[in-house]
Amino acid sequence: MKRLSLIGLGIVDERSVPLMGIDRMKEADVVFAEFFTSILREGSIQRLKEIIEKEVTVLDREDVEEKELIMEALGSKDNVCFLTAGDPLTATTHQELRIDALKIGCQVDIINSGSIFTAAGGMSGLQHYKFGRTTTLGFPEENYFPTSPHEMICDNMERGLHSLVLLDIQAHNDRYMTAPEGCDIILRMEEKAGIGKIGPLTMAVAIVRAGREDGKVLYAPIGEMKEMDLGGPPHCLIIPGKLHFMEEEVLELFRSGDHFDKSIRSL
Amino acid sequence: MKRLSLIGLGIVDERSVPLMGIDRMKEADVVFAEFFTSILREGSIQRLKEIIEKEVTVLDREDVEEKELIMEALGSKDNVCFLTAGDPLTATTHQELRIDALKIGCQVDIINSGSIFTAAGGMSGLQHYKFGRTTTLGFPEENYFPTSPHEMICDNMERGLHSLVLLDIQAHNDRYMTAPEGCDIILRMEEKAGIGKIGPLTMAVAIVRAGREDGKVLYAPIGEMKEMDLGGPPHCLIIPGKLHFMEEEVLELFRSGDHFDKSIRSL
Repeated sequence: MKRLSLIGLGIVDERSVPLMGIDRMKEADVVFAEFFTSILREGSIQRLKEIIEKEVTVLDREDVEEKELIMEALGSKDNVCFLTAGDPLTATTHQELRIDALKIGCQVDIINSGSIFTAAGGMSGLQHYKFGRTTTLGFPEENYFPTSPHEMICDNMERGLHSLVLLDIQAHNDRYMTAPEGCDIILRMEEKAGIGKIGPLTMAVAIVRAGREDGKVLYAPIGEMKEMDLGGPPHCLIIPGKLHFMEEEVLELFRSGDHFDKSIRSL
Repeated sequence: MKRLSLIGLGIVDERSVPLMGIDRMKEADVVFAEFFTSILREGSIQRLKEIIEKEVTVLDREDVEEKELIMEALGSKDNVCFLTAGDPLTATTHQELRIDALKIGCQVDIINSGSIFTAAGGMSGLQHYKFGRTTTLGFPEENYFPTSPHEMICDNMERGLHSLVLLDIQAHNDRYMTAPEGCDIILRMEEKAGIGKIGPLTMAVAIVRAGREDGKVLYAPIGEMKEMDLGGPPHCLIIPGKLHFMEEEVLELFRSGDHFDKSIRSL
């Protein structure tokens, strides 16, 4: 039976791939990958190729959405792998590929890996059960600046829930939104929407380079955070809701300039 | 500097561990693990020991909550690893351990892995952005049968959001709640709470043995699902909210008895 393996690469680099992902790639007839929905450390794919001793064809968004190359490969080969950073199937495009493969009678295997969806919550110290809906901030465009992410954050806040806020990735332009940029955009949305629930003193958690050796967690008011330099991508934000005392205790460890700075550098 | 590495083992077995997790264990002076918050395939730890060529001390809930053994190890050793199934830091107990280690000046590294929190959503085909709050069903006790999980599901439904419903694990009693048991409990909660939003015809998604070779997704009415035998643990449930047409298309593939049964056996 023909098999399509959707393999998550995790959130760091070739070393965040699970053993079974590596084994599956080694058996594969052809290996595709995409990096427009997320980002790994520089050189990850090169080093991965050396580990699996095989070529990896990186597809752009158009190729993945059209699905032609992958479906063609499934027509002529038995074992096709498709790699994405994070956990597979978090993006709609990948679900479409999965449906098409199932429809032609392929076996579709999913190999799970670390994802920012759970890593961010864990790093922040906030409880997974208290997260509301996740939202994503897009880079504002000249005539397009929807405030719906801001509404979603306010809605979560009102219910005492935390908001995971993912930040725009435009890999083709090498543009990755930072947590400070995100804070600025949230404040501008507040100005436009005028709900009055979020201000410069609202506290935010920046999750910076999650899972990496130079990863960082920072807890600061949005108004201060927007002026900071937190280094390279990837970043994301959490706007906390009502805090349990233990959540507060963890967050206090991540306030800027405190004596834990040295330890948190490696978080 | 002393270092505590919190390592996620993923959701399957020793092969769902990321390469960097294996490397870190190989360097470790001492390796602890716990399995009361989740479950891996039988024999995983034995096979992991062979891979890392090192002992792994499995702690029970009491040992982890008291933290004494791990903190003592950090006192006398430089490199201590603590392993958990899934992604680290999703359980409160692990956060407490992390805080204590940070407070004595340890470096705490987190090594992320696949988690049921994201794997379930991906397998179901439902969009991550449309999940509301996650809830957990506990085994009912004689004089304790709170209906709050049911309220949370209804609240999500009302807002058009999907609910991830985790199911009780009582590892010490070798009891793992199945999706059919979960459906039965949800219907009993409805009876008790009488909100009238959930009935036997409400559709549910069972995610069975996520990430494993004999994993399965099943889409069926709660009233039917509660009579089914879906095999061994781990299971979890999703109660969908408002469905996008593409979400519907995926779910239809997972209806019981349809021609995709053969393919989904390996999902």
